[in-house]
Amino acid sequence: MSGLSTIATPAFVVDREIAKANCDRMRAKALIAGVVFRPHVKTHKTVEGARLQHGDSEGPITVSTLAEAEFFANAGFDDITWAVPVAPSKLDRCLAIAKRARLILLVDHPSAVAALSEFSASNQVDLDVMLKVDCGYHRAGVDPDAPESVELALSIARAPRLRLRGLLTHAGHSYGAKDAGEIARIARDESGAVRRLGSVLERAGISGLLRSVGSTPTMSVAPIEGVDEVRPGNYVFYDAFQAAIGSCHLSDCAAFVVTTVIGSNESRGECLVDAGALALSKDPGPVHVDPGFGFGVVCRIDGVPLPARLVSLSQEHGIVRWRDRSIRVAIGDRLRIVPNHSCLTAALFDRYLVLAGGRIEGEWRPCRGW
Amino acid sequence: MSGLSTIATPAFVVDREIAKANCDRMRAKALIAGVVFRPHVKTHKTVEGARLQHGDSEGPITVSTLAEAEFFANAGFDDITWAVPVAPSKLDRCLAIAKRARLILLVDHPSAVAALSEFSASNQVDLDVMLKVDCGYHRAGVDPDAPESVELALSIARAPRLRLRGLLTHAGHSYGAKDAGEIARIARDESGAVRRLGSVLERAGISGLLRSVGSTPTMSVAPIEGVDEVRPGNYVFYDAFQAAIGSCHLSDCAAFVVTTVIGSNESRGECLVDAGALALSKDPGPVHVDPGFGFGVVCRIDGVPLPARLVSLSQEHGIVRWRDRSIRVAIGDRLRIVPNHSCLTAALFDRYLVLAGGRIEGEWRPCRGW
Repeated sequence: MSGLSTIATPAFVVDREIAKANCDRMRAKALIAGVVFRPHVKTHKTVEGARLQHGDSEGPITVSTLAEAEFFANAGFDDITWAVPVAPSKLDRCLAIAKRARLILLVDHPSAVAALSEFSASNQVDLDVMLKVDCGYHRAGVDPDAPESVELALSIARAPRLRLRGLLTHAGHSYGAKDAGEIARIARDESGAVRRLGSVLERAGISGLLRSVGSTPTMSVAPIEGVDEVRPGNYVFYDAFQAAIGSCHLSDCAAFVVTTVIGSNESRGECLVDAGALALSKDPGPVHVDPGFGFGVVCRIDGVPLPARLVSLSQEHGIVRWRDRSIRVAIGDRLRIVPNHSCLTAALFDRYLVLAGGRIEGEWRPCRGW
Repeated sequence: MSGLSTIATPAFVVDREIAKANCDRMRAKALIAGVVFRPHVKTHKTVEGARLQHGDSEGPITVSTLAEAEFFANAGFDDITWAVPVAPSKLDRCLAIAKRARLILLVDHPSAVAALSEFSASNQVDLDVMLKVDCGYHRAGVDPDAPESVELALSIARAPRLRLRGLLTHAGHSYGAKDAGEIARIARDESGAVRRLGSVLERAGISGLLRSVGSTPTMSVAPIEGVDEVRPGNYVFYDAFQAAIGSCHLSDCAAFVVTTVIGSNESRGECLVDAGALALSKDPGPVHVDPGFGFGVVCRIDGVPLPARLVSLSQEHGIVRWRDRSIRVAIGDRLRIVPNHSCLTAALFDRYLVLAGGRIEGEWRPCRGW
């Protein structure tokens, strides 16, 4: 890994071959299942990453911010779902994007539907809308089994300039699973939620609704059944969290932080590295399965995991405690750290170095802000 | 707060008048104590913030990254301490900065001293060095009471081109205090560590060493005694953490995130806001004193705290749970959130909006990266 020995640290590195394998595997799974593949781009927020997800091409995508929608529309992605409920004050920006690309908005509340109806009427534009459904995560979305949810869907369908495209859910609670078996059970809740509400709405006269699901744990582990669209995102890079709960193997993790040893305390069996909270994020990781590695998996620079715990992070310092006290590193040595949560870690860097064939072949520049 | 009603959210806002009061108070305290005032700029990383710390002027500063050292040297700050142990691979960049500004480096290990000695000799340059001392935080630094520490200081003093300027310590463990009384006890440990080692070194023939201390809790609460230099940083903004442990009042917090309500679930007594982990950081805050507010203090847009707990953050969503179930907010309403850790929150934004006299008067652009 000579390519990693001279870069300035801390650095965020993407192993392009591993990322490509992750992308190809997930895209093939969606293709075989015959569903629309609309991957989330929020983990990497790069044009290069999104094209990798679609096999070196543009295609439908899911975004988490309006800044991403603008960034990817500028790059030629013309079919975008913004998978966060829209606030009325952001509709002007949505309209500007919708002139260049199909932009699908998310709603889950009568007042938002009213705001969108009024906005679309006064601006004389049609708006594409998905109804957000709660499949048990309890973050956003309507109850798939409540009569009010049917009423809300009907009110969207009746609004002259709103086009109800489908039902969208996200099993974020799959991150709380302890293993692949539990993830598979949550995957059934995820698809079941949009299927049940979809069936009721079909009987109420609204047919052809797209049933859209997606979380990296459920999409990695469970079969794709009874839905029309999938939206995984984190799988491009995966991370230590996903490996710990069984979504992937540690060797599938395609992104890591390269760090330099800046201190060594032999009596405490610790070393100090130059990757702190601003290089890794303070995401505590999968504490519910207690994998023992702390704030990330500490590896040799060639990727071999070390018996260590990243016990604490302050702004620019990380403390690594060795479980094997015979380990010795010297000041100036380099390590790689597989982050707990690649989405939050990637967001801390304004460029990603791309590793291929053992050398840095270029860099990706992500979209930032909102 | 009409100035906050139209900005795009999430936004990071600095109340300039509160920040100025925090800066003036700390600078006056250092002035009265007769010590060198070398504030840390890592919390805000802006030229405007650093000048505010020095009363609308340049002055000695402390930085956490080489990128900050370069940024502030370019802005006319010519006396800079980099308060993180230096790795040998970064010495070329240090040398480039040292041609424009006085740059003081930190060491705490014989191998780093050897690397600096060799580098300074082969480049025929003198390097200013502080010896990092551990006062109980156990992150970095030498044991102030160990014979090896005296040996290390002597080896720096004897190196032909290293200039030992002083002893530097940071009581980061003051963040683990439960109240102002405990902070005051830690402050005595902090100053005691550099005073004890300083006395021993004086008897060993090394006199005139600067004894440098600094953490926002200790500098806010305790008297400045028996030291020569102070380096607090977080106090410019303070945050919910500092208020919870007694470093300041909540009304001293000068930075907050403005967020928009994007969902409301009345049956769960919750609302959803557009400030998630990428707008606030996942810093869990002062869990050891369990202040009950979760990932930040949720306030009305005018700054009045609300009976709420910010129970969870995902990438772009925050869930607020009301302790008073009669509270109702509507989609589109705005709230402000005082972050748990202003250093990590500020680092997520590429601009800070500056509030003064109830309106946004401009923006500060921070330094980013390493």
